Amino acid sequence: MSSVSVPPPKCLQKPLVVPHRYMFGPGPSNVPPRILKAGANPVIGHMHPEIFEIMSDIKTQNSMTFAVSGTGHAAMECAIFNTVEGGESVLSAVNGIWGERAAEMAERIGATVNTIVAPPGGFLTNADIEQALSKHRPVVFFLAHGESSTGVLHPLDGIAELCHKYNCLFLVDSVASMGGTPLHMDQQGIDILYTGSQKVLNAPPGTAPISFSERACQKIFSRRTKPVSFFLDLGWLANYWGCDGKPSRLYHHTGPVTAFYSLRESLAVLAEEGLENSWERHHKVAEYFHQGLESMGLKLFVKEKKARLPTVTTIIAPHGYDWKEITAYIMKTHNLEISGGLGPSAGLVLRVGLMGCNSSKDNVDMVLAALRDALKHCHKSKV
Amino acid sequence: MSSVSVPPPKCLQKPLVVPHRYMFGPGPSNVPPRILKAGANPVIGHMHPEIFEIMSDIKTQNSMTFAVSGTGHAAMECAIFNTVEGGESVLSAVNGIWGERAAEMAERIGATVNTIVAPPGGFLTNADIEQALSKHRPVVFFLAHGESSTGVLHPLDGIAELCHKYNCLFLVDSVASMGGTPLHMDQQGIDILYTGSQKVLNAPPGTAPISFSERACQKIFSRRTKPVSFFLDLGWLANYWGCDGKPSRLYHHTGPVTAFYSLRESLAVLAEEGLENSWERHHKVAEYFHQGLESMGLKLFVKEKKARLPTVTTIIAPHGYDWKEITAYIMKTHNLEISGGLGPSAGLVLRVGLMGCNSSKDNVDMVLAALRDALKHCHKSKV
Repeated sequence: MSSVSVPPPKCLQKPLVVPHRYMFGPGPSNVPPRILKAGANPVIGHMHPEIFEIMSDIKTQNSMTFAVSGTGHAAMECAIFNTVEGGESVLSAVNGIWGERAAEMAERIGATVNTIVAPPGGFLTNADIEQALSKHRPVVFFLAHGESSTGVLHPLDGIAELCHKYNCLFLVDSVASMGGTPLHMDQQGIDILYTGSQKVLNAPPGTAPISFSERACQKIFSRRTKPVSFFLDLGWLANYWGCDGKPSRLYHHTGPVTAFYSLRESLAVLAEEGLENSWERHHKVAEYFHQGLESMGLKLFVKEKKARLPTVTTIIAPHGYDWKEITAYIMKTHNLEISGGLGPSAGLVLRVGLMGCNSSKDNVDMVLAALRDALKHCHKSKV
Repeated sequence: MSSVSVPPPKCLQKPLVVPHRYMFGPGPSNVPPRILKAGANPVIGHMHPEIFEIMSDIKTQNSMTFAVSGTGHAAMECAIFNTVEGGESVLSAVNGIWGERAAEMAERIGATVNTIVAPPGGFLTNADIEQALSKHRPVVFFLAHGESSTGVLHPLDGIAELCHKYNCLFLVDSVASMGGTPLHMDQQGIDILYTGSQKVLNAPPGTAPISFSERACQKIFSRRTKPVSFFLDLGWLANYWGCDGKPSRLYHHTGPVTAFYSLRESLAVLAEEGLENSWERHHKVAEYFHQGLESMGLKLFVKEKKARLPTVTTIIAPHGYDWKEITAYIMKTHNLEISGGLGPSAGLVLRVGLMGCNSSKDNVDMVLAALRDALKHCHKSKV
């Protein structure tokens, strides 16, 4: 045997230490012990009948529904890579960072990309959207339902009808919204919908549920070219997940089986509570939170009440303070994560996420107390 | 609140049940309780200092080393997407299924792909390789070091020198070999090397360590076009992993933090044993296994001894039997996974993987007993 020239790194001799922390930023959220425990079950094969049953629990009644073996960004690329071919036109609603990233992904595969930009904290009207659809004639229109960077819950009503009028697929990112606010893929005419495991679902990051409508499948399965990614190719994924009706399932990639266990368990927790109950809880808790913030004199970044995301709240960075000092103080003193802005909201806001099991009045009280404490102890300029 | 038209699926009301099973197929392997437990630690933020420390434990002394947030196929695409631009020439050694898949991935992004094909169970000579390099002048040459579909451990010596002579990067897949047999990235001149978490490392599937040489980085960072994938873009990943020397780390994607915990722990287990000891153990156990098989009258698919992968053994499907009946019998009767062939070895072989903690003489004895039992009880035709 040859000898190793590099000794094993000393850092690996120390035990692994992971702190407990209140995860009240825009994600990942805290994961309840039941879901963590599910993920620590023994590994079985990615093609064993038992994992197919667990994968089947993850699917919905819509036939083309499964989980991407990656985080939200992988689902975003899965959606775009499969629905868009080089040279086709894509329209992205830039309502925060997600619209920018969707645009970048489509550009990278050679699409012609146009954007419509909403002011930070605002949203687009259906008239804006129709005008852009009619002008650019895209094959896909991207919209973030829950814009976690700006705290906007974008209205969806009527948009699918506009898309379909212009022969365009409606692609919706619900990473920060699904499970926390009403969302009806079929009734609202959404063609591609995805979310992440680590927000309202309270599973660890690493899987991303995604669903494709019949209309989306029709376009995808009549492509002229193969999608750029083999790993994210819907034909292969659909077969691996048993969504294509074929009798045999071929080896595509080694699914992250333990991540499927925890995702499955997170869905079971949500099913036990009931989707409507979860929606209602998130809305009530958010309202209680927003009232508490306003009664402290803090201002919300999203002016229009109905456009406030119940899962991730954006608070205008308190005047005279350095937002970084506030988030650092709260982390250090309260062992609690809240975060600053991202993309178009960077430097402008504080972001607080209360998602899934974290969405409770007790947690709101904890965040409000931490904020009050921070405003008392952090430096305030005299302006 | 709107009402849900679809009731929660009944299947989610049942408790999650995962069997324990001997995972002696080509992967995933069994995961020891210590590593499963590491992955059940609480979720912290993907940008918190503690996760950066855990990620730093995963890195090596080579500056551009990190783990892809996905399984081996994602690492394969990460390697190809970053090193190859549309229109460039790629050469893939097809020595089993992995060379085929690498070729397909490169084709999908518009590369000009050529292959050199070794007979199943065999390998290529350096003369074959040089001839193809000189003819096709590729920018990247792909080779699977451990070809888990055929059971071949491909010789590496001298290949990097040939690649570099023809100004080509040497890309090596070590998913089935790393940790189980000597491998020296720097000394052997490998430019891009990746593996998977779920084989010798004994972590759950879902992360894939990858490393790029200086030479590879030079090509990548002077690309004319952006890689097709934002999720797998080395520029972004290098920054997220703190490999680019920049003072601030930007949000790229939400890293699968709990999968990083278990990967880190799997590396700690390997460091405790010592790489050389692990290599030696795998080789000794494989030799013991191969002798046992031969003394039962079974034949190995890979004729040349030095080209037998110590981690995954391919056995010529016993004459007169249906291989599917054998694997099914062993699964049912012994709760033990061994598998059939894949790609060019489909229908021709049985595959047994003994990797990481599974590589022991006791486990060899268990597999041999199961095989003996299967050959006794499965149907044998009279030919």
